Amino acid sequence: MSDSIQTAVVGVTGYAGAELARLLLRHPRLHGKPPVFAGRVDQKDLARGGVPLIEIHPHLAGGNGSGQLMQEPFSWELLARRGVDVLFLATPHEQSRQWVPEALARGLRVIDLSGAWRLTDAANRAVYAFDDEGSEQAAAIQAQAVYGMPELHRARIAGARLIANPGCYSTCVILAVKPLVAAGLVDLSHGIVADAKSGVSGAGKAPTAKTHFMYAADNLSAYGAFTHRHTGELLEQIGVAAADIVFTPHLLPIPRGILATIYLRFKEPQTRESVARVYHEFFAGSPLVRLYDKALPQIQYVARTSYADIGFHLDAGGRRAVIVSCLDNLLKGASSQAVQNLNVMMGWPESEGLE
Amino acid sequence: MSDSIQTAVVGVTGYAGAELARLLLRHPRLHGKPPVFAGRVDQKDLARGGVPLIEIHPHLAGGNGSGQLMQEPFSWELLARRGVDVLFLATPHEQSRQWVPEALARGLRVIDLSGAWRLTDAANRAVYAFDDEGSEQAAAIQAQAVYGMPELHRARIAGARLIANPGCYSTCVILAVKPLVAAGLVDLSHGIVADAKSGVSGAGKAPTAKTHFMYAADNLSAYGAFTHRHTGELLEQIGVAAADIVFTPHLLPIPRGILATIYLRFKEPQTRESVARVYHEFFAGSPLVRLYDKALPQIQYVARTSYADIGFHLDAGGRRAVIVSCLDNLLKGASSQAVQNLNVMMGWPESEGLE
Amino acid sequence: MSDSIQTAVVGVTGYAGAELARLLLRHPRLHGKPPVFAGRVDQKDLARGGVPLIEIHPHLAGGNGSGQLMQEPFSWELLARRGVDVLFLATPHEQSRQWVPEALARGLRVIDLSGAWRLTDAANRAVYAFDDEGSEQAAAIQAQAVYGMPELHRARIAGARLIANPGCYSTCVILAVKPLVAAGLVDLSHGIVADAKSGVSGAGKAPTAKTHFMYAADNLSAYGAFTHRHTGELLEQIGVAAADIVFTPHLLPIPRGILATIYLRFKEPQTRESVARVYHEFFAGSPLVRLYDKALPQIQYVARTSYADIGFHLDAGGRRAVIVSCLDNLLKGASSQAVQNLNVMMGWPESEGLE
Amino acid sequence: MSDSIQTAVVGVTGYAGAELARLLLRHPRLHGKPPVFAGRVDQKDLARGGVPLIEIHPHLAGGNGSGQLMQEPFSWELLARRGVDVLFLATPHEQSRQWVPEALARGLRVIDLSGAWRLTDAANRAVYAFDDEGSEQAAAIQAQAVYGMPELHRARIAGARLIANPGCYSTCVILAVKPLVAAGLVDLSHGIVADAKSGVSGAGKAPTAKTHFMYAADNLSAYGAFTHRHTGELLEQIGVAAADIVFTPHLLPIPRGILATIYLRFKEPQTRESVARVYHEFFAGSPLVRLYDKALPQIQYVARTSYADIGFHLDAGGRRAVIVSCLDNLLKGASSQAVQNLNVMMGWPESEGLE
Repeated sequence: MSDSIQTAVVGVTGYAGAELARLLLRHPRLHGKPPVFAGRVDQKDLARGGVPLIEIHPHLAGGNGSGQLMQEPFSWELLARRGVDVLFLATPHEQSRQWVPEALARGLRVIDLSGAWRLTDAANRAVYAFDDEGSEQAAAIQAQAVYGMPELHRARIAGARLIANPGCYSTCVILAVKPLVAAGLVDLSHGIVADAKSGVSGAGKAPTAKTHFMYAADNLSAYGAFTHRHTGELLEQIGVAAADIVFTPHLLPIPRGILATIYLRFKEPQTRESVARVYHEFFAGSPLVRLYDKALPQIQYVARTSYADIGFHLDAGGRRAVIVSCLDNLLKGASSQAVQNLNVMMGWPESEGLE
Repeated sequence: MSDSIQTAVVGVTGYAGAELARLLLRHPRLHGKPPVFAGRVDQKDLARGGVPLIEIHPHLAGGNGSGQLMQEPFSWELLARRGVDVLFLATPHEQSRQWVPEALARGLRVIDLSGAWRLTDAANRAVYAFDDEGSEQAAAIQAQAVYGMPELHRARIAGARLIANPGCYSTCVILAVKPLVAAGLVDLSHGIVADAKSGVSGAGKAPTAKTHFMYAADNLSAYGAFTHRHTGELLEQIGVAAADIVFTPHLLPIPRGILATIYLRFKEPQTRESVARVYHEFFAGSPLVRLYDKALPQIQYVARTSYADIGFHLDAGGRRAVIVSCLDNLLKGASSQAVQNLNVMMGWPESEGLE
Repeated sequence: MSDSIQTAVVGVTGYAGAELARLLLRHPRLHGKPPVFAGRVDQKDLARGGVPLIEIHPHLAGGNGSGQLMQEPFSWELLARRGVDVLFLATPHEQSRQWVPEALARGLRVIDLSGAWRLTDAANRAVYAFDDEGSEQAAAIQAQAVYGMPELHRARIAGARLIANPGCYSTCVILAVKPLVAAGLVDLSHGIVADAKSGVSGAGKAPTAKTHFMYAADNLSAYGAFTHRHTGELLEQIGVAAADIVFTPHLLPIPRGILATIYLRFKEPQTRESVARVYHEFFAGSPLVRLYDKALPQIQYVARTSYADIGFHLDAGGRRAVIVSCLDNLLKGASSQAVQNLNVMMGWPESEGLE
Repeated sequence: MSDSIQTAVVGVTGYAGAELARLLLRHPRLHGKPPVFAGRVDQKDLARGGVPLIEIHPHLAGGNGSGQLMQEPFSWELLARRGVDVLFLATPHEQSRQWVPEALARGLRVIDLSGAWRLTDAANRAVYAFDDEGSEQAAAIQAQAVYGMPELHRARIAGARLIANPGCYSTCVILAVKPLVAAGLVDLSHGIVADAKSGVSGAGKAPTAKTHFMYAADNLSAYGAFTHRHTGELLEQIGVAAADIVFTPHLLPIPRGILATIYLRFKEPQTRESVARVYHEFFAGSPLVRLYDKALPQIQYVARTSYADIGFHLDAGGRRAVIVSCLDNLLKGASSQAVQNLNVMMGWPESEGLE
């Protein structure tokens, strides 16, 4: 359990990759050892050895030498030469699917931020239509992948070689629902409703009709009702059937943050205290989950932080609950959770570099 | 059924009042007869006969003589002298509660945009804590108030002397849910969830901590879970019990528009066609409701229009529905609906001046 | 001076095209004669005769039969068959450059919203690098083009066959500066500064890195300092040399609206009254320019209107002025001005259908 | 030069105060010594010793014990008892004016974020209309106040007992203009124009008509032309006369950030290199100013950072410059600059805790 590890990041050009870079660059255990940034480099930039990080993300140009860093042309040899121990993939699903076998074969530990290895049930994976679906190799790799949510799988993450970092929506909903379902409180026959709203960074950096300012601003739109690919994570991690939960995402006119409003019914009447107790017990030892005593969380209090915030209200009879769960989709919903997983893997304090 | 009526507006200073003024000023049947604008006028403005509308709302300063209009000091004599037939109250609940008896006694027909007279059940009204709750006069007036949603109560509105113009959230949810409940399709035992999101104009013009740009922008917050005062309208108009529906409003970082995402379960499996048929039959002859065939409505398509847009998705089994309903909270959720009620009262085409 | 004209619009898919469609569809003189919408139609839509307008712009689906309208495949025969009198081009510069000769040859009157024919001085046009620059045909057409700003060229517009509709920034700055320069008040040796800020719709509908919500939101950026292609219009229409004026546009995080803050110095000290008199005289008979007596205009008061609003402050000595000019870039900065030009061409009231 | 100092903050409830708290709580030299937060405490909170910081600013509730911190009732005795060395005042101007004499008399060093002590010229101070204007005591204190912009006054700050922390607009403009004026390059007879745009946090936390979301969103407005009270700082610090510069602030619909676009003319033609050299020499040793080589700065790259970013374009002749200067109004424009001043006072690295 040493401090002197070398990380690498593929995919620093995207939003999650940029946040990951920021977090790793200021991580106290990685000081003096900035990540290797690797990826596709245009012909014209090869001569200068890659693309300066400062050109990709001007806001990363600050102190501690980050102004000199480059995104270099990716090769396995580069990673080997630089002695990389842990590889972060902030890449498209298909690319993670292709690269992870090689990375593991080369002895790297991998934290994959894509959806490539999150789902153990082939039916849930169907929505991704992976090319290698059904192959033995893929099955073997999936078998060793650990769903990277420390609040649920801390022990397994510590020893994992492949972390499937959770989806942003999934993280927001699972953290709010899992403790109550695990405690046996929820009447699943009534169904759970998860109405989630995300800022535009969740839609990625590619300019599209839906990420155009004119489409997103002053607007709200629902999408993916009954079909969003984060649904499988909810089923597998909460442990419910597709018939038990409805999940609808919405596109919010804000840069970042997710708020999920969750509706469920209890088998037996509960009190504020009885529900709070379940949450507090579940999240004892989880430094990145903040529980609200009275008020409900809001996006403004989690944006640009690594926290997931959870609060709830019960109806007068104590049978119905409205739970509000918030996080920053690029941080606890992606890059902070990836670093949290790194911390757990390394045996470092779970929230180190994240508060 | 004459065209030559005189309207008056109390409360033009607010957001709904401004939209009401705009609509009435350009209404084809009211051309040449602008509304009388009446309200509280500061001492210093009495000398010039009131406050020019153009100073209150610079954007209303346009053609057709609106530049000369004034908000004059309110008095019943003013209304009588100007021959007012129909009085619009865009006033606080308490003020509407106090003024409506006098207005009716003086023979005025009233369209009240506040929550003063919307609820027939005293239990539902309790949240308003009206001073005159329990008085005989109030009961008598409540008995003649008609809930001003033409899609539900067209015939009674035509002959009404007092219209209680619906709440913005209520309009959005009722229009989406009522047709399905009325058709007997909905399994109420599973509960209806109405997750609603509104722009900031819904919070009113008073500067408060929650309407501050720094609070609302880049944020989303839930409020009023289980307690919002529009809930009573849902119960009474949809015809369900408090245990059957959960309604949670949220504050969106946009100026205007409401989107409600509604979750319910059918008693028997439905098809897209069977559900569409119910909606189309219910809204036949309702020009201000637009039904979506495939896509889901979005706020951008209703903002600054008088329409309510409704669309839905079913799950694969046809048992669960996600319904999305949108409108502009200041228009179909307030002022356009008020003018729609005026049109129905006058026997004019229901959407005249609103498209 | 007849009312029975037929219009056509090429380019309804863009933002300005959509606003133009909306204005023409509700124009009182064109009632019952909706524009012909023509453009490129995909193979798959040819079978149904084009693309329903309602699919391109859901918000245009409203009353008066607009729900049935189509964008049809463009051909000169289509325009001839439908008896088109006036052709609006809301097309890229190059396309307008190519099509206008044919349109004029076929006897159509053209209102071109692009920059193709706005500039008479070849040096100013250089920034566009037109393919046909220097050709005799182009020169002949340029010679008959009239710069479509009725406040400056009303008489010539009335008889024009080709209107070059002004740029959005240009309109905003020219209206504010021209009256003072024309009156001989401005000390040009000190230079005029025009610092202009525009909403994102000014950048067009194509999704790009700069129109991505994540780039534009919560941001402000300057661009095109000393090089923006609207500069030539300022020089030609105000009548100043390049050395006399600096123009810098900025991208505002709002959907629509331009505000230009203009700084200039007078040859002789002025008073508020002397300056106001110049403006009032210049804009007498110009219904779409609103002059502010004391306050300064703001984008919120012109957004979604056809007005240009102008206000100013002088320093204590009366030698320096700060002038603020506002308009909606899609309306007075584009489509409303196009309709204003149509009105002038037809001898209709200049602001008909625009207030 | 010791590390063991105790700070105190009055005014943590405001936006600048909150940022100051965040910066001081994570400052490496102050670890283990959180600031004393003092202010007005309501009667009802006296029993519990004040108001928990977490209730005032939920987002400050994070690691390192900040969850236990309180805003305590202010008294000079409190500060003495806690051994406060340096007092930050994030208070209204009048309050700073009243408290600073007492603070200095008690031996405290003061960093005042208000405008109370920034201006040495009584004529420039007139806009504040201080009660004690003209008193001997005020004059004596003003005489020892140092304008807290380390890039200009590093040496004097090191030994100062009273730092007048600069205004946000002033910082943005002075940093961009001072180097060029100091180098003698600027032709003042042509005048300098500073067109500045600020996010809403600059308007303070009080809910007002102008900070209402409905006023600020989708809008841009100019204010304070020729009269804004930051003007005096420009005159005194740049060293120009009122006739030499025009400064106009605007309210941007974003939470935070200022961008100033500055227009000036050189006495002699310059090149990109000659101007860059002046800036680089001026800011050598200034870690919080970033100079742009080609592109222009944007608000998105400085928001939530402690940097001031400066870039420029020259016209073809090299006589006219457009300079763009950006910073976060709450950070380099307020709290980060305050901490930068603390660092300089203490002899710590100037940007410690700020990158």
